[in-house]
Amino acid sequence: MVLDICRSFGISLDLALEAREILRGETGQEIPGVRVDRERYNEAEVTIVNIVEKAAEAIMGKPMGTYITIEAPVLRENNPAGHHRVSQILARQLEPFISPLPPHANILLVGLGNWRATPDALGPRAIGMSLVTRHLFQYAPRELKGGMRSVSALAPGVLGITGIETAEIIKGVVERIQPELMIVIDSLAARSVTRICTTIQIADTGIAPGSGIGNRRAGINRESMGVPVIAIGVPTVVHAAVIGQDTINAYLRQLQTATNAGLNQHLARQAIQQVLEPFGGNLTVTPKEIDSLIENTAKVIAGGLSLTLHPGLTADDYSYYLH
Amino acid sequence: MVLDICRSFGISLDLALEAREILRGETGQEIPGVRVDRERYNEAEVTIVNIVEKAAEAIMGKPMGTYITIEAPVLRENNPAGHHRVSQILARQLEPFISPLPPHANILLVGLGNWRATPDALGPRAIGMSLVTRHLFQYAPRELKGGMRSVSALAPGVLGITGIETAEIIKGVVERIQPELMIVIDSLAARSVTRICTTIQIADTGIAPGSGIGNRRAGINRESMGVPVIAIGVPTVVHAAVIGQDTINAYLRQLQTATNAGLNQHLARQAIQQVLEPFGGNLTVTPKEIDSLIENTAKVIAGGLSLTLHPGLTADDYSYYLH
Amino acid sequence: MVLDICRSFGISLDLALEAREILRGETGQEIPGVRVDRERYNEAEVTIVNIVEKAAEAIMGKPMGTYITIEAPVLRENNPAGHHRVSQILARQLEPFISPLPPHANILLVGLGNWRATPDALGPRAIGMSLVTRHLFQYAPRELKGGMRSVSALAPGVLGITGIETAEIIKGVVERIQPELMIVIDSLAARSVTRICTTIQIADTGIAPGSGIGNRRAGINRESMGVPVIAIGVPTVVHAAVIGQDTINAYLRQLQTATNAGLNQHLARQAIQQVLEPFGGNLTVTPKEIDSLIENTAKVIAGGLSLTLHPGLTADDYSYYLH
Amino acid sequence: MVLDICRSFGISLDLALEAREILRGETGQEIPGVRVDRERYNEAEVTIVNIVEKAAEAIMGKPMGTYITIEAPVLRENNPAGHHRVSQILARQLEPFISPLPPHANILLVGLGNWRATPDALGPRAIGMSLVTRHLFQYAPRELKGGMRSVSALAPGVLGITGIETAEIIKGVVERIQPELMIVIDSLAARSVTRICTTIQIADTGIAPGSGIGNRRAGINRESMGVPVIAIGVPTVVHAAVIGQDTINAYLRQLQTATNAGLNQHLARQAIQQVLEPFGGNLTVTPKEIDSLIENTAKVIAGGLSLTLHPGLTADDYSYYLH
Repeated sequence: MVLDICRSFGISLDLALEAREILRGETGQEIPGVRVDRERYNEAEVTIVNIVEKAAEAIMGKPMGTYITIEAPVLRENNPAGHHRVSQILARQLEPFISPLPPHANILLVGLGNWRATPDALGPRAIGMSLVTRHLFQYAPRELKGGMRSVSALAPGVLGITGIETAEIIKGVVERIQPELMIVIDSLAARSVTRICTTIQIADTGIAPGSGIGNRRAGINRESMGVPVIAIGVPTVVHAAVIGQDTINAYLRQLQTATNAGLNQHLARQAIQQVLEPFGGNLTVTPKEIDSLIENTAKVIAGGLSLTLHPGLTADDYSYYLH
Repeated sequence: MVLDICRSFGISLDLALEAREILRGETGQEIPGVRVDRERYNEAEVTIVNIVEKAAEAIMGKPMGTYITIEAPVLRENNPAGHHRVSQILARQLEPFISPLPPHANILLVGLGNWRATPDALGPRAIGMSLVTRHLFQYAPRELKGGMRSVSALAPGVLGITGIETAEIIKGVVERIQPELMIVIDSLAARSVTRICTTIQIADTGIAPGSGIGNRRAGINRESMGVPVIAIGVPTVVHAAVIGQDTINAYLRQLQTATNAGLNQHLARQAIQQVLEPFGGNLTVTPKEIDSLIENTAKVIAGGLSLTLHPGLTADDYSYYLH
Repeated sequence: MVLDICRSFGISLDLALEAREILRGETGQEIPGVRVDRERYNEAEVTIVNIVEKAAEAIMGKPMGTYITIEAPVLRENNPAGHHRVSQILARQLEPFISPLPPHANILLVGLGNWRATPDALGPRAIGMSLVTRHLFQYAPRELKGGMRSVSALAPGVLGITGIETAEIIKGVVERIQPELMIVIDSLAARSVTRICTTIQIADTGIAPGSGIGNRRAGINRESMGVPVIAIGVPTVVHAAVIGQDTINAYLRQLQTATNAGLNQHLARQAIQQVLEPFGGNLTVTPKEIDSLIENTAKVIAGGLSLTLHPGLTADDYSYYLH
Repeated sequence: MVLDICRSFGISLDLALEAREILRGETGQEIPGVRVDRERYNEAEVTIVNIVEKAAEAIMGKPMGTYITIEAPVLRENNPAGHHRVSQILARQLEPFISPLPPHANILLVGLGNWRATPDALGPRAIGMSLVTRHLFQYAPRELKGGMRSVSALAPGVLGITGIETAEIIKGVVERIQPELMIVIDSLAARSVTRICTTIQIADTGIAPGSGIGNRRAGINRESMGVPVIAIGVPTVVHAAVIGQDTINAYLRQLQTATNAGLNQHLARQAIQQVLEPFGGNLTVTPKEIDSLIENTAKVIAGGLSLTLHPGLTADDYSYYLH
């Protein structure tokens, strides 16, 4: 049912974990061509969804590849030590993508989104907290500590500010500086408010066209960019249409103990459309404290990136090295 | 019904116009002790709700006073000339509060809200676009053009940033500089998404405790501040609980053509609570383009204020005079 | 003498007008291969320095081309109407570069500099005030008013933030979107504090390597970018070494009425070096009100660009059209 | 001589250490009524200037009290560990002012200066990095760790933005919330560029009228505020007039090996005035990397404050606890 609503409102299911849950919920069994692994930590549960067969792409609505989901409710608590441990879990999950690179490989961080709209600002904020070193490697290689990598960073802005498709700007820069790897940070939409700023998805397939809350028109992936693209995404909103659908469902479930009223999917869609019509359904739900949630999550991501990319830096170094 | 939901989720109905509509919708007749006037312009409809009797305060949930609502759907369009005309309508509605003041009266503008969270940033952004002159009057009175007033401005921030109740900061400053009038700009919550950044409310009763999307604990009004307080409020969000309620209603209305299922208010509340539970129901709905809507609305408000406060300035002057 | 100091401190003379004045001051006659024209307006004096012969390039330290200097002391006054007229003069000087372009030509605005360091933030601030339309042309061409052009914008940041040479980022984007013209806005260094935020230089030769206060290493010009580049530069600082030199000169001039002490250039250089040594001479002088000067100048430039690029927009439209 | 120049340009000598050095330089002996102590650390030298007699006030141009100067050239290096140790030295020097306070005392941090002008933004930036807890103490006292204090924070802006004297805003807030101690952070002017962002002064006399680079008209001290005021000041600029004077001096010293030209103070002043005339001498010298210097120094100060005010927090906690 949620899939129906998402389709009729043009909403993409950004998290592979959610896509799988919904599909399994409807069919009751594992999706063919999908393999799932799990790791458990004190602060987080990690689920690795592998889409290993072409046939599963269409079902999941996502390209073949690995989707690692870190679910860490502690991110919503005021718990610095807990956040730091999530940074370490993130670093551990990123490590297999980084460690095979030659020591002098260039890594380009890209923060997607609009820095002037809070829920879409996660990418630019994480970029602003990241340690950039590529120019140091070029101009003063010997001053650098061991255990650092050559990192550059870009926050290309959004179409409304630049007049240029984001993917075009990135592609232009990638062609010039030819990084060995891109890591793209983006805000996602989830189908449940529990996921807002508590779930981090790492995907080795990059950014699919139309995904993320910015609905970027073009994909940012190995195909379009010519280099491997790791996407780090965090849900920061839920579409209001999904909330509408869930509310009707929940109401009917409450009702069914008494009567036998089943859901009329068509009428539900019309009801939601009617309520959300003024902005063409393009409305999202966020918690009030979204600003500090985004700030904390950006820190956790920048921290995790730093632990992986610059393993030679101590935590203390790191907090001061930032520009 | 909406009133029920609002009460159970602790949501205030910030717009007097909406409170009246909902109450009339339930009773079918004008609320005793409330008088309503209307003005029509090409770009906006202006409704003036006067709560004139003490008895109406409890029903409306608002103190006695005048609540002017400017409904201007053009604010959501990319229509600069239209926006300018809304500024003029705003200036016209503010004028009766300003013109009785002596020429050298001090007016303190206060922008409530958190500049780092987009929907709550309307007040600080409007302040940032306003022309501040009090210091010029003090140090170089003769250089000033006629038709300007002595204006000072404050964006006190929010509790989480300062550790101090906003009303305490403002009260402290008011006691020092003793303005003749305060104009406070705040972000509100509406009960319909059509109102987001299309409706401007002017209230001569100031800010009620618990109102606005920041849920400021203390009131900011003539009683607490010791000077008259005009509040300019614009809805920038709708509470997700209200969206949930509306969706169930809409669904049941659709359904009723076939069956006869009435709304079970208790179950509806439970359903909504269940969906929105993770953030204690403290979730709000905003359109994606909220950033540019806030920017435009802040401009319209700053423009309207300027036309009223500094009638001697030409539009051209104004756009350059800003700090 | 100033040339000596500049050379020994690695300071470029960014303004062609100043280079010419200094050279003429030393030789007493017009530099061969340089032609000069003048226009006078109420608010500004416009000097057009044409370097027309190859031989003059080395003398002037600037490539062959046209350097238009608008000297407008009114920019430092609190005079909105005066500023607006400078915008109009700027538009008039830019017009010959824009009008020959076909109506659907793409123009890329680039704001050089660091938005976090006030005197270097002129470019990014002017960009932030500019009307970007390229995406509107692409997705909804018919909604656009006549008299608008397709404009995109980029504020690429500085090496320390991105780890990437600014020219590389721009070149990458230019290759993707292939604009017909680039207009680059940059902060310059002048040799006299009177010029800070009162002089605007338009150069059809783009940005020379090492010029501007950001000392960008690579040139941004037709040669490196493959498209014509107009540079708009405004001095926002004077190098402290130049101030030092001027002070010694002025002192000795004062002294000479009494004694006959000539300047010992070598000793002067040593003296300056000694005073400014801690930052390797890399110190600049700015007025305290630099923040509001930058703001005003950015407005004048954005205003002038808009008048030229979107002649169909009224002033009123413009002030609201901004994102 | 420097004192002459400072007086004729209305420049205050913000650092007690420098005032003493200059005065001693002229007289060759310790100033009567002034006592000096010293502490040496690996990363910093600490000098404690005590003005203990009324008579010394006029000579030093500063009220009786204690002026602690931390000279730490490491602050200009890219040396995170070194910076952290300076934070610890700062904490140690602040500790005697904090520890006598009762455990539930309220401490108000005030960041003076204009957040939009880089060298004047130190105060607001340090405030933005500080952990604010007063509201937590008020609403959820039991959730707080031991070893934390009740801290609130204010960045009142500058006269040009608010139209209100900064001291008036602060006084108003102080009267409302009645803190037991104020700690005010401000940008200072030094007489030598070596001090820019390498020297931290702690003064238990607060902020003198006219001091700091913002030239705040009114004092912020125990007398005006009614509570003890600790001022933390860091030089972020040198007045250009001081640079001019130093250059002439240095030149003449170079010259004197050959000739016997002494300094004519009157002519020097005229020379400087002539060079700096356009902005009334109100010009300051800053290094190009001022943005990152301010950022680092703000971190060191916020870190030092946190170590003193919240000794129960680990470094790790701290970096995450920030709003």
